[in-house]
Amino acid sequence: MDQAARRIIDRCRELAAISDVEGETTRLFLSPATRQAHALVLGWMNEAGLATRVDDIGNVRGFRAASEPDASTLLLFSHIDTVRNAGAFDGPLGVVLGIEVVAALGERRLPFNIEIIAFSEEEGVRFGFPFLSSLAATGQLAHTQLDLVDAEGIAVADALRNFGLTPEAIAQTAALPPDSFAALEVHIEQGPVLEAANESLAVVEGIVGQSRLRFTFEGHANHAGTTPMALRKDALAAAAQWITEVERYAADNAPLVATVGHVEILPGAVNVIPGRVVASLDIRHPDDNARRSAVTHLQDFAKQVATQRGVSLLSELTSEQNTIQMDGPLTNKLLHAAQGGAEPVGAMYSGAGHDAMIVAPHVPTTMLFLRSPGGVSHHPTETVREQDVSAALRAVLTFIAELEREVTAR
Amino acid sequence: MDQAARRIIDRCRELAAISDVEGETTRLFLSPATRQAHALVLGWMNEAGLATRVDDIGNVRGFRAASEPDASTLLLFSHIDTVRNAGAFDGPLGVVLGIEVVAALGERRLPFNIEIIAFSEEEGVRFGFPFLSSLAATGQLAHTQLDLVDAEGIAVADALRNFGLTPEAIAQTAALPPDSFAALEVHIEQGPVLEAANESLAVVEGIVGQSRLRFTFEGHANHAGTTPMALRKDALAAAAQWITEVERYAADNAPLVATVGHVEILPGAVNVIPGRVVASLDIRHPDDNARRSAVTHLQDFAKQVATQRGVSLLSELTSEQNTIQMDGPLTNKLLHAAQGGAEPVGAMYSGAGHDAMIVAPHVPTTMLFLRSPGGVSHHPTETVREQDVSAALRAVLTFIAELEREVTAR
Repeated sequence: MDQAARRIIDRCRELAAISDVEGETTRLFLSPATRQAHALVLGWMNEAGLATRVDDIGNVRGFRAASEPDASTLLLFSHIDTVRNAGAFDGPLGVVLGIEVVAALGERRLPFNIEIIAFSEEEGVRFGFPFLSSLAATGQLAHTQLDLVDAEGIAVADALRNFGLTPEAIAQTAALPPDSFAALEVHIEQGPVLEAANESLAVVEGIVGQSRLRFTFEGHANHAGTTPMALRKDALAAAAQWITEVERYAADNAPLVATVGHVEILPGAVNVIPGRVVASLDIRHPDDNARRSAVTHLQDFAKQVATQRGVSLLSELTSEQNTIQMDGPLTNKLLHAAQGGAEPVGAMYSGAGHDAMIVAPHVPTTMLFLRSPGGVSHHPTETVREQDVSAALRAVLTFIAELEREVTAR
Repeated sequence: MDQAARRIIDRCRELAAISDVEGETTRLFLSPATRQAHALVLGWMNEAGLATRVDDIGNVRGFRAASEPDASTLLLFSHIDTVRNAGAFDGPLGVVLGIEVVAALGERRLPFNIEIIAFSEEEGVRFGFPFLSSLAATGQLAHTQLDLVDAEGIAVADALRNFGLTPEAIAQTAALPPDSFAALEVHIEQGPVLEAANESLAVVEGIVGQSRLRFTFEGHANHAGTTPMALRKDALAAAAQWITEVERYAADNAPLVATVGHVEILPGAVNVIPGRVVASLDIRHPDDNARRSAVTHLQDFAKQVATQRGVSLLSELTSEQNTIQMDGPLTNKLLHAAQGGAEPVGAMYSGAGHDAMIVAPHVPTTMLFLRSPGGVSHHPTETVREQDVSAALRAVLTFIAELEREVTAR
């Protein structure tokens, strides 16, 4: 098994060497490097005995037929596009591990098909819009999304055609098998939770809901030397008081996370009191009501700070997404399968979005996380531990054996 | 007298119409608009009976001889360059009021000369360096400053030559008269203090000392969704806690003013915890020791915040300037002169720099501030009240009468 884990890691690194930008790992949707990556993945899939194809949104798909006709299908998926200057494992790990699972099954007869899907666009770097390929696979791709343009003004539809694909055929060729009965995404955690808990794996109970807001504090820009403290309307001092409360409230209301990541300060001169501050708020919680309460509290607090200071405040909700639960029974099955191994296993919510949350409303779906050493992702130093990959591979094979028992018993 | 005040205001507005940029008031050092402004000011000076010239740093100078030879000289000065998109009064008011003072003196014989100096470069916009012309007049202009270049790569020395001036002659032609015995700059306050105190005028006791620092908080950039609050090293949360203390400490230690005006936040993405924040601190106080104590406290506080959070901190002093006191006896004389009028008069420190602080170490110098309605300056809506201009003109004439009595009594 350790040899298999080693091969998974080696193949992820082999894929990482295929890049649109020399010296780093940057593989954007439908790029030249993506074509090379397709060839490599298709080769591995063929070698594992999968029937391969590329669908018309650019997903690479490998199919292993059940022992009998009219069987239903288990989906194993993740993505093979990357952010700019990425690591080797965010996405590819789930695809490569799926191929290794099929290789490990060998000649074993199963009462269900397995389809491995390497989604083509999860990160959303090229067209500024994530999950395009899982949206396409679940019939949710809107015509307007085919009109999105990249930095060079090329539309999605034209990029597909340039790649040799037929956008008009997406609905037919990219759809998930209608008989899909279960779906699993294996992915690195991209956070420090498992490492802090000293656990190898976690099943994912759901993808946390998220609100994004924009807060504008409008004070009065004045001379930093000639304006006494008592006569100031300092927009940054107001924002700082609020940012401190954002952190305190989230820390006191775990597992809430709240982040002020982008702040514009105007005019932004050393000797001028800031007159205007525009700050982002990103706030996430597994419980949608807890998230909404947090938003309300932080809006109220900002208003109160602004009123006390004679500063004006505008807060705007820019996006909102409810928590997406993974399928309960399937997630329990995965948890039992994973807990059968030697490595410690937990359960957690994902703080980041994944294709699994796009697939979940259509097919019973679950996710398996592998520990991210140092919590690092979206960075060349992103890595995984061989023992965790080994544990993940065993967990998925046990999970498949459980599914086999269940389907056979029907 | 109200007619004279009206003329001062009208002339400032007439000058404001002369601009390098149509539709606003932007008059940079040695620019085409500056040549037009010179013509206008020289005309007014000639009309008031002054002997005029332009020295080799571009200062416009008007001389009124004493009733007797070998008399000493009173300087009345301010500047006629502006910031970009300026108001009409910051600088020009002191020059135009000086000309009106001489006009009001008429044929009256005084035991001292008066020289009016319209300094050519106070704001420092064109070459990114303020006070060039008062530094030249006090023999402090360094050769390196003649090599400073503007946005188009033109050096100060070449800009002077292009304007028809001779940089090599600066030491001879731009020097203050060696027999200068007193100097007065009249200027708008550029702050809200006099308006809040309901006073027309203030004598300036000194220009406050100032420290500027750069604080770098270095935490760890991480995913806003996947990183629990307890595992974060948020550089912005650290900076926000410190910014709140900057404001509190200054408010509790008046007349200290402390401003965080420029902040860079990296990477600055909505969904990434800030890993690095670089923040400016501008801190001013009339008492140099109080200012230094404040700097020490705010450095210590930042260190403490950083240590508690496992964030690293670098604080660097980028510039420091001690308080420059105006001449005590001369300032008292001006205060008595100003208090003789109908309008209420105060005494205060200037929070902003002025040519007076360059001249003060060389000639006994004082300053008179006029109330700035709304505290507005460096903005097209900058204005003055006619009654305050009237009071300032009376105060300066009374001050001159006091000097006359004193010089005559010697």
